[in-house]
Amino acid sequence: MSVPFEYTPIAQSVLDECEHLDTASLSDALDSLGIDGGLPGIASQVPGTRCVGIAFTVQYQPVDASKGFRGAANYIDQVPSGSVIVSSNSGRHDCTVWGDIMTHFALANGIKGTVIDGVARDIDTVINCNYPLFSRGRFMQSAKNRTQLKAVQVPLVIDGITIRPGDLMVCDGSGCVVVPQQLAAEVVRRARAVEQTERRIIEAISSGSTLEQARMTYRYDQPWLSEAEHVGAHVPS
Amino acid sequence: MSVPFEYTPIAQSVLDECEHLDTASLSDALDSLGIDGGLPGIASQVPGTRCVGIAFTVQYQPVDASKGFRGAANYIDQVPSGSVIVSSNSGRHDCTVWGDIMTHFALANGIKGTVIDGVARDIDTVINCNYPLFSRGRFMQSAKNRTQLKAVQVPLVIDGITIRPGDLMVCDGSGCVVVPQQLAAEVVRRARAVEQTERRIIEAISSGSTLEQARMTYRYDQPWLSEAEHVGAHVPS
Amino acid sequence: MSVPFEYTPIAQSVLDECEHLDTASLSDALDSLGIDGGLPGIASQVPGTRCVGIAFTVQYQPVDASKGFRGAANYIDQVPSGSVIVSSNSGRHDCTVWGDIMTHFALANGIKGTVIDGVARDIDTVINCNYPLFSRGRFMQSAKNRTQLKAVQVPLVIDGITIRPGDLMVCDGSGCVVVPQQLAAEVVRRARAVEQTERRIIEAISSGSTLEQARMTYRYDQPWLSEAEHVGAHVPS
Repeated sequence: MSVPFEYTPIAQSVLDECEHLDTASLSDALDSLGIDGGLPGIASQVPGTRCVGIAFTVQYQPVDASKGFRGAANYIDQVPSGSVIVSSNSGRHDCTVWGDIMTHFALANGIKGTVIDGVARDIDTVINCNYPLFSRGRFMQSAKNRTQLKAVQVPLVIDGITIRPGDLMVCDGSGCVVVPQQLAAEVVRRARAVEQTERRIIEAISSGSTLEQARMTYRYDQPWLSEAEHVGAHVPS
Repeated sequence: MSVPFEYTPIAQSVLDECEHLDTASLSDALDSLGIDGGLPGIASQVPGTRCVGIAFTVQYQPVDASKGFRGAANYIDQVPSGSVIVSSNSGRHDCTVWGDIMTHFALANGIKGTVIDGVARDIDTVINCNYPLFSRGRFMQSAKNRTQLKAVQVPLVIDGITIRPGDLMVCDGSGCVVVPQQLAAEVVRRARAVEQTERRIIEAISSGSTLEQARMTYRYDQPWLSEAEHVGAHVPS
Repeated sequence: MSVPFEYTPIAQSVLDECEHLDTASLSDALDSLGIDGGLPGIASQVPGTRCVGIAFTVQYQPVDASKGFRGAANYIDQVPSGSVIVSSNSGRHDCTVWGDIMTHFALANGIKGTVIDGVARDIDTVINCNYPLFSRGRFMQSAKNRTQLKAVQVPLVIDGITIRPGDLMVCDGSGCVVVPQQLAAEVVRRARAVEQTERRIIEAISSGSTLEQARMTYRYDQPWLSEAEHVGAHVPS
């Protein structure tokens, strides 16, 4: 069920830096490269959690009723430690593709979080476990006989955004961002500059600056440039 | 406004057992009988609450403007202790059919919770009271002159699911499940077996088992069978 | 970008009273005058927060791609202390018009809260700051190059409800209510009577009254009338 795929490994130092970056800064860094990475409508289900990891992708498809009973998906046995599972059930709200067993397995095996284009169940347990779960909502009906595994580690498309196996996933209270693996290091570098720019602007307005002045001083028009780059950068007219 | 209805009483022991069962297990037990019981899109509004009780049904209808002012619905005076009120406002988001007065009345009279196909108000009070409220959302506009009581204790249909007066309602963070009263005892028996199976699988994977092995060992394909039944059960090919 | 507008100032005493009134009572008071004031689908994003203030309105429009890069909106520099910012991005879910910089600026400058017909970002920061934010949801993609400021301090229409600069805004866990500035004093007077009526009904049912009796005794049919007014009021048949 899995398809061969050429990965670009993401350095551990890049993943480590993401622990201190929020989805807004990463999205701004992607914007500076002309790329959309946010997954609209997929929201945090466990207040206060966030996650960073490598996308392990899972595609579901409707059950073919003529084929009889379909068992549960055990793909999780092959998910490497450090992954964020991205599971597409095509936005369906009538059956779940995540629950308490998967949550306990993920926590026991170093899986960092789960992103679902669809809904999840056993939410009270997931909250008690403080497991980072992001979905379109909550429900309780099983996947069994409703939806079935089509493939793992294939590219997914969610609301027009492509997620490839091995991409960088960062999720927080504002939602989920996918960063193409080939660009991960550069996007993280830019996101760090964005956060530094924003921190300076926040310090300036806390000291009484107008927002306009603070944004001009700290070059909010190109926040992804480092200070050194700003000095040499062409100021747009 | 109420209609005669043949009830199948649900034993107190069955209700008591449900206090320890989650909606996912009950839904799996219903699945084993080929029945859908989840109410999609109706979500917990008070984090950490759950409820178990007997459905008392309420049907609203749009106000007939030509008939002048319509008073508030006082049906709650006739709701027995131990009920979960299931109130259909046909999914409307523009006016509420539950608020602080009803919440205080429910708490003072042993009503276990409220499920609304529509929206509720006075949410801050409901949260402060820790009252189990499940709805499509939150708003503040009154029902008065917008929607009016049509009938109580009649069958409701919410998203294709029928709720009859006297049915078993169980609601938690994953949503609301309705169990037909005639099947309540059998469904609860099966749900208990489901939870035991799941507990064993979770223990196995916490001890390092693969999910596939754990699910095979503990017969996740038919989790509603007790251990004794599994021994004699026909293994599907 | 701003348009002249005739304001009716709202007395500080009226604003102070609103600190103790919930959106449900204000909405009931508006109902008694035949006015709809609730903004459906715009929900609290920070549990436990509420706000009261004077509407400062902001209208966004789609970016005209042919016009090149558009900078961030710095309108917030002109927002007076005591305002609630009401920002219309026409319900768009794909880009945000509020985030951490705006939140810090608002807190440093006496802005009371923000209402968005659209989505906001940096939600974890907004929650940590306990800032009253109300929106259709959460996302992280920037407004830059997606949406741009069209005008400030112009009338907005959100789901059929008009919000004029200077209107009274009250928001809580049940949502957001706009009260036309010309009617603010009268609406608040009526809302206070509504809350007193409701308090008496809640006391009565806590003491064992039926809801029907309590509502009849305390005139729930016209809760916006004070006790003195009830004595002289015509009782509807």
